[in-house]
Amino acid sequence: MAERVLVAGLGLLGGSFARALRRVRPDCRILGLETDPVHGGQARALGLVEGLWDPGSAGEPFDLVFLAVPPSAMAPVLETIRPGVGVRTLVMDACSVKGPVLRAMAQAFPGHGGLVPAHPIAGSHASGPASADPALFTGCQVVLSPLPSTEPWALTAARKLWCDLGAGVREMEAEDHDRTLALLSHLPHLAAFALAGLASGADLSLAGPGFRDSTRLARCPPGLWADIALANREALGPLLEAYATRLIGLKGLLDGGDRAELQKCLMNGALGGE
Amino acid sequence: MAERVLVAGLGLLGGSFARALRRVRPDCRILGLETDPVHGGQARALGLVEGLWDPGSAGEPFDLVFLAVPPSAMAPVLETIRPGVGVRTLVMDACSVKGPVLRAMAQAFPGHGGLVPAHPIAGSHASGPASADPALFTGCQVVLSPLPSTEPWALTAARKLWCDLGAGVREMEAEDHDRTLALLSHLPHLAAFALAGLASGADLSLAGPGFRDSTRLARCPPGLWADIALANREALGPLLEAYATRLIGLKGLLDGGDRAELQKCLMNGALGGE
Repeated sequence: MAERVLVAGLGLLGGSFARALRRVRPDCRILGLETDPVHGGQARALGLVEGLWDPGSAGEPFDLVFLAVPPSAMAPVLETIRPGVGVRTLVMDACSVKGPVLRAMAQAFPGHGGLVPAHPIAGSHASGPASADPALFTGCQVVLSPLPSTEPWALTAARKLWCDLGAGVREMEAEDHDRTLALLSHLPHLAAFALAGLASGADLSLAGPGFRDSTRLARCPPGLWADIALANREALGPLLEAYATRLIGLKGLLDGGDRAELQKCLMNGALGGE
Repeated sequence: MAERVLVAGLGLLGGSFARALRRVRPDCRILGLETDPVHGGQARALGLVEGLWDPGSAGEPFDLVFLAVPPSAMAPVLETIRPGVGVRTLVMDACSVKGPVLRAMAQAFPGHGGLVPAHPIAGSHASGPASADPALFTGCQVVLSPLPSTEPWALTAARKLWCDLGAGVREMEAEDHDRTLALLSHLPHLAAFALAGLASGADLSLAGPGFRDSTRLARCPPGLWADIALANREALGPLLEAYATRLIGLKGLLDGGDRAELQKCLMNGALGGE
């Protein structure tokens, strides 16, 4: 029987997942769930999904529910999908923050064996269904952070799915994941918004490739990133402070004209040329 | 008679200039000046220059001297080139900071009509003669900051030269240039070093494209950037402080859980998606 799939959230991640899944499992039936009617309409028109799911309709439970929604939407969407979740439904998210998602999943579906919190480390500053890219996950890494209730069949199915999509899979504790991603992703995003904010109103006509790269992440949706930052604020707050302290330290070395110490400080972060 | 050119500093900028110049003026004779014997040898072996200049040798003054050295090397190199500078020698630099360069040039060659301080806004994190790229300046912008002593023939020759190399030219007061570049280039460079420094020692295996872009400038040579930062510290210091203040402000909003205000702050720097 054809696999039944629900993709909740038809933006960049959800849309890309639908496109990528259809490539490797051409027989699967993909329905969508989307609170934004414009995105929902686009996703249908683009053929990302066969149709939008009506939670009130009777029907078999899904084989897979993929939740590609921001952290703050997780709790309500977990309630919405309830009629589509059976004992053998694999429920997977794609959030960049895992701690709050694990708690929300465990609360909504206590003891459910099919819960597999996931974070595919892929993305782009593009957003919306029109940016859906079937190759988004090719070569990316996916972190799985299973719950105590997660059963082996679900973990195996999740691993196989991401491998089929061309991604590498590793398991990681939610807390380790969140601390690591705060440093490698959430801080750079907020830093880019802050840097671009400092330059807002300035004449950017002399901006070179360095400025463009340094502020590329400020092209991401600010609402989504406010959401992610808040969801991971325990790990992110101290990093924002440590980063600011380093910048103030550099200013002190400039004020003091201490070339040797300044160079030593920059060396500490030097990644080496080509 | 063939144009005689001296390129002082045979790293990325000087080497690229030599390669680019030879493309558009195949007859010119390019000599090099380089304190690093390894770079000097590489530049000769790669054919960037016909040979290295001996300041003690008698000979005609150069038509053009291009100074591609860090700010801190400017004063000594201006002394070294003295025997090669005649009344009709165009002397041009490529520094990312203009104020101190103008002062050093005016002090070394008071009243000289051929001084044209220049900043081609081009570059890469690569360095050394082997990274010389004849297309480095194609499509880039070049800022010229003439001195009171600069004569029209020199400014005209400088404009024509950069146009021939495919660059766009504009004139700008040194002070305006330095303030603008502190924001658009020097701050992003120091921020990248600081961000990469914060992550030094961390497991980078989960770093995605966002982290790579945000820290790309930390692949630049730390010694050069310590030099540039110090040369522009008056403009750069307050920006480091303002940037740190913004980051601390974001931390405060995270601590307070103020989603609306956090989103507003990020919106302020949002560059818009695709």
